[in-house]
Amino acid sequence: MKLALIGVGLIGGSFAAALRAAGAVSQVAGFDADADTTKTALSRGIIDRAATSAADAASAADLVVVATPVGAMRATFSEIAGALKTSAVVSDVGSTKCSVIDDARTALGAAFARFVPAHPIAGGERPGVEHAAADLFRNRLVITTSIPATDPSAIALVEELWRKVGARLERLSPEQHDKVFAAVSHLPHLLAFALVEMIARGPDAEWRFSHAGAGFRDFTRIAASSPDMWRDVCLANRGPLGEELRAYRARLDLLQAAVDAGDGETLHAVFTAAAAAKRGRRTAV
Amino acid sequence: MKLALIGVGLIGGSFAAALRAAGAVSQVAGFDADADTTKTALSRGIIDRAATSAADAASAADLVVVATPVGAMRATFSEIAGALKTSAVVSDVGSTKCSVIDDARTALGAAFARFVPAHPIAGGERPGVEHAAADLFRNRLVITTSIPATDPSAIALVEELWRKVGARLERLSPEQHDKVFAAVSHLPHLLAFALVEMIARGPDAEWRFSHAGAGFRDFTRIAASSPDMWRDVCLANRGPLGEELRAYRARLDLLQAAVDAGDGETLHAVFTAAAAAKRGRRTAV
Repeated sequence: MKLALIGVGLIGGSFAAALRAAGAVSQVAGFDADADTTKTALSRGIIDRAATSAADAASAADLVVVATPVGAMRATFSEIAGALKTSAVVSDVGSTKCSVIDDARTALGAAFARFVPAHPIAGGERPGVEHAAADLFRNRLVITTSIPATDPSAIALVEELWRKVGARLERLSPEQHDKVFAAVSHLPHLLAFALVEMIARGPDAEWRFSHAGAGFRDFTRIAASSPDMWRDVCLANRGPLGEELRAYRARLDLLQAAVDAGDGETLHAVFTAAAAAKRGRRTAV
Repeated sequence: MKLALIGVGLIGGSFAAALRAAGAVSQVAGFDADADTTKTALSRGIIDRAATSAADAASAADLVVVATPVGAMRATFSEIAGALKTSAVVSDVGSTKCSVIDDARTALGAAFARFVPAHPIAGGERPGVEHAAADLFRNRLVITTSIPATDPSAIALVEELWRKVGARLERLSPEQHDKVFAAVSHLPHLLAFALVEMIARGPDAEWRFSHAGAGFRDFTRIAASSPDMWRDVCLANRGPLGEELRAYRARLDLLQAAVDAGDGETLHAVFTAAAAAKRGRRTAV
């Protein structure tokens, strides 16, 4: 099988490397807007050919994986639509799904029926193809959010490939997906960026950073993620994210009042509910 | 040297274990409000004797380390004041310093001159003496916040003991300490508790938790800290914490407006400043 990878970063690069390691692809053409990225991917053996454009990469492919930031997806779909083989399957790895499906519907033309929206829950604080690893998806959750119009054989192909690289599959509706990830992924990233930026803006920022304990280090780890990617995610999922942020700000209003008033009961109730939830649950990914 | 440990948790237990491993203490008397905790500490060899009260523990000690939640410090100081040897040095490991110094000034009587406020920047998500470890403070920062009235020989003793267990020492004023830790420790904990509690209150909490990615897992790790300890910290440092929370909420107001309006420029500027700060700094602890 010939793979085209458009957007060569941590996730796309790791998927290509994993598919090759699993013997699932024979040839990988890659395109990235950044030429240095393509060079790194070539030198690491993650792609075999540096394509001159997204359309060039896609033209011979049996599977096209679009792994750009979600804000670039619509333009990418437009570029490849005319170059795709009739049988080609298209998929993505974006963190939002309603926006990507809208983009594909608008821009992919007939190939939209063979577009399989997917979101691997993996990654971390070190973006870039230089950190790509073939084992990144082992035991990780990959969510597909196909719609009724999606060709079942295209879904089967994409899900089978993710299984081959060690992932567990789950199917959600695009709306379910975007709502839950607004809460458990997009909001935490936005909150972490906001805290680190607030400290960074202060006059004694370096001194404050140098006194960071365990709690703050967790925030800075999250805030090292790609600003481009997360701007796109926040815009693409702004409806559900805006709702979650509004609800969170209401909780902070309550906590501000408790702190100001020295209301230990409210603080304790909130902290206890959080600690109990942490102890009681099992994290699936 | 005879050590009394009052409040036998992760931090106090680890300090006692580390002092013993360094050969700095010959005997450790421990008191904790929870009898099971004292039993665990005895069985792990962290304390030699389970005292019947804080005063009982303190009566023969050359050094008394108070390692209770900061909300219990004033009562503890009151209980031990009459039992202390004239030469005894008293210290603490609390996460706030102005409140603890006020408590000591009010309750310790003449021993206040030999009270050395200290804060080891260590710990993590697993509270309790069952997780105590003699190497917890290796290469960690320990901040002392003595005041001009503090006996220099008492300061020297406490700092020397922390050095012996591998810590690096820094001196700050109590006010400097409380302001910086409001920003880099107390606020992040409060924000993490608030997010995890918000998800936990929702009707589909278990399902949402099961979809948590890397970003949210960092929050849940923080939120597994002790609710009692953090309620006390938030109350004891409510002035500086309230200020930092107010500033943070103003940043979230800005981000809510950006999300609602689809204003990618503002989001990108905030995220970029945060990511740049993370890349540019070195964490000292």
